[in-house]
Amino acid sequence: MDKATLQNSMRVNILVVSDRAAGGERADATGLALGEFLKTKNVETVAVEIVPDEKAQIVKALQQMCPDADLILTAGGTGLAARDVTPEATAQVVERLAPGIAEAMRAAGLRITPHAMLSRGIAGTRGKTLIINLPGSPKGAVESLAAVWEALPHAVALLRGPVGDESHKG
Amino acid sequence: MDKATLQNSMRVNILVVSDRAAGGERADATGLALGEFLKTKNVETVAVEIVPDEKAQIVKALQQMCPDADLILTAGGTGLAARDVTPEATAQVVERLAPGIAEAMRAAGLRITPHAMLSRGIAGTRGKTLIINLPGSPKGAVESLAAVWEALPHAVALLRGPVGDESHKG
Amino acid sequence: MDKATLQNSMRVNILVVSDRAAGGERADATGLALGEFLKTKNVETVAVEIVPDEKAQIVKALQQMCPDADLILTAGGTGLAARDVTPEATAQVVERLAPGIAEAMRAAGLRITPHAMLSRGIAGTRGKTLIINLPGSPKGAVESLAAVWEALPHAVALLRGPVGDESHKG
Repeated sequence: MDKATLQNSMRVNILVVSDRAAGGERADATGLALGEFLKTKNVETVAVEIVPDEKAQIVKALQQMCPDADLILTAGGTGLAARDVTPEATAQVVERLAPGIAEAMRAAGLRITPHAMLSRGIAGTRGKTLIINLPGSPKGAVESLAAVWEALPHAVALLRGPVGDESHKG
Repeated sequence: MDKATLQNSMRVNILVVSDRAAGGERADATGLALGEFLKTKNVETVAVEIVPDEKAQIVKALQQMCPDADLILTAGGTGLAARDVTPEATAQVVERLAPGIAEAMRAAGLRITPHAMLSRGIAGTRGKTLIINLPGSPKGAVESLAAVWEALPHAVALLRGPVGDESHKG
Repeated sequence: MDKATLQNSMRVNILVVSDRAAGGERADATGLALGEFLKTKNVETVAVEIVPDEKAQIVKALQQMCPDADLILTAGGTGLAARDVTPEATAQVVERLAPGIAEAMRAAGLRITPHAMLSRGIAGTRGKTLIINLPGSPKGAVESLAAVWEALPHAVALLRGPVGDESHKG
């Protein structure tokens, strides 16, 4: 499958983690901004869900999304505020870490602002799903995703495994 | 609170981790160098303590410092020598990791020397305190701190939480 | 001991992790390429072993190699394919992590290809042995090793400890 075809078939879910968005206090601008970015890549967002900054709820939402998603993007809860626990929830859900994705996002972010080093986001896999923590602001989330996008279709292809050759997978 | 006011009110503790300094074999040059750097930022060092490279003693010292400190800087014990266990002790104390701070220190260090990649330091939070592992040499410690300093007042502000709005904190 | 003498005395083991190489389906090109690189540094490879992508077998091979090696280079099993578990096996074997080595390899790799961020390799120490996960392709493995090589003789010297001063080691 070439890159264009793969992007076309990628199933992406977005999980917005925000007390205020979950409480209806503010519109979910970050989810919309990520959806817009994905559209420019011909990737359809399958689902957008919003949960408050509660570890148990983030864990549950991620677990439910996984079976149907190639890629889950979380947005929010990666900072140093007391309620920010998205990386801890994600660490509980993933089976294997992919530290290089978070490193690449932060390295790119540091070229824009030193505050990028404060993002505690992680990335990892559960089954055939890749989960990536993005910052909560629309600008930060899209910039972080753009910084790693070029590698993601290949990542999804690796997770799906060789086409027509299911016997090689563990 | 603006950045200048915040720096003025920041409570910073320094924990020097060194068998030789703890045994009185060498003056604590690194603690002094860090104090000098902080003074140039109008930040007063509240306390400097010295412990040997013993995991249990490092853990205990960090736990005791946390309630009264916005920021704890450890110096030493981050290398590959057999006695270097500061990151392992710190990992036991923090509740949340902040990997981007250590990544940014090492990335800056690599522009000075390839040996910077051997520093195993971590960063993380316990309650409202940010803990950062710095290398043991005066030069290495100050260079590492300088590399991330610009983001630290904001980090401390996030950890303290919104002023006059305690109800939003978990 | 100066750098040249140290490189001359370094005991390096290579562990190729690959279902296909272990099954004899393909020649172990990566092990050979790493051996060639090490020769240019006047470093003799003590042993090359091949195991399939099975966590238990990787763990066992690493444990058996450690007592006699300053440095163990693994090659393969660091990606996102379902069978890739070398970092997880390595995490089980090491006592202390050295995250800066993996960060430096990926940062160098990103200057060549964005896919470098998908390498999940780690590095760490067990006793006096440094273990580093390299990618599985000959090109990727050699490029990654070359990116961190300059710091490795110093790393090995630190792990061996001060010469003629065994009493200082824990």
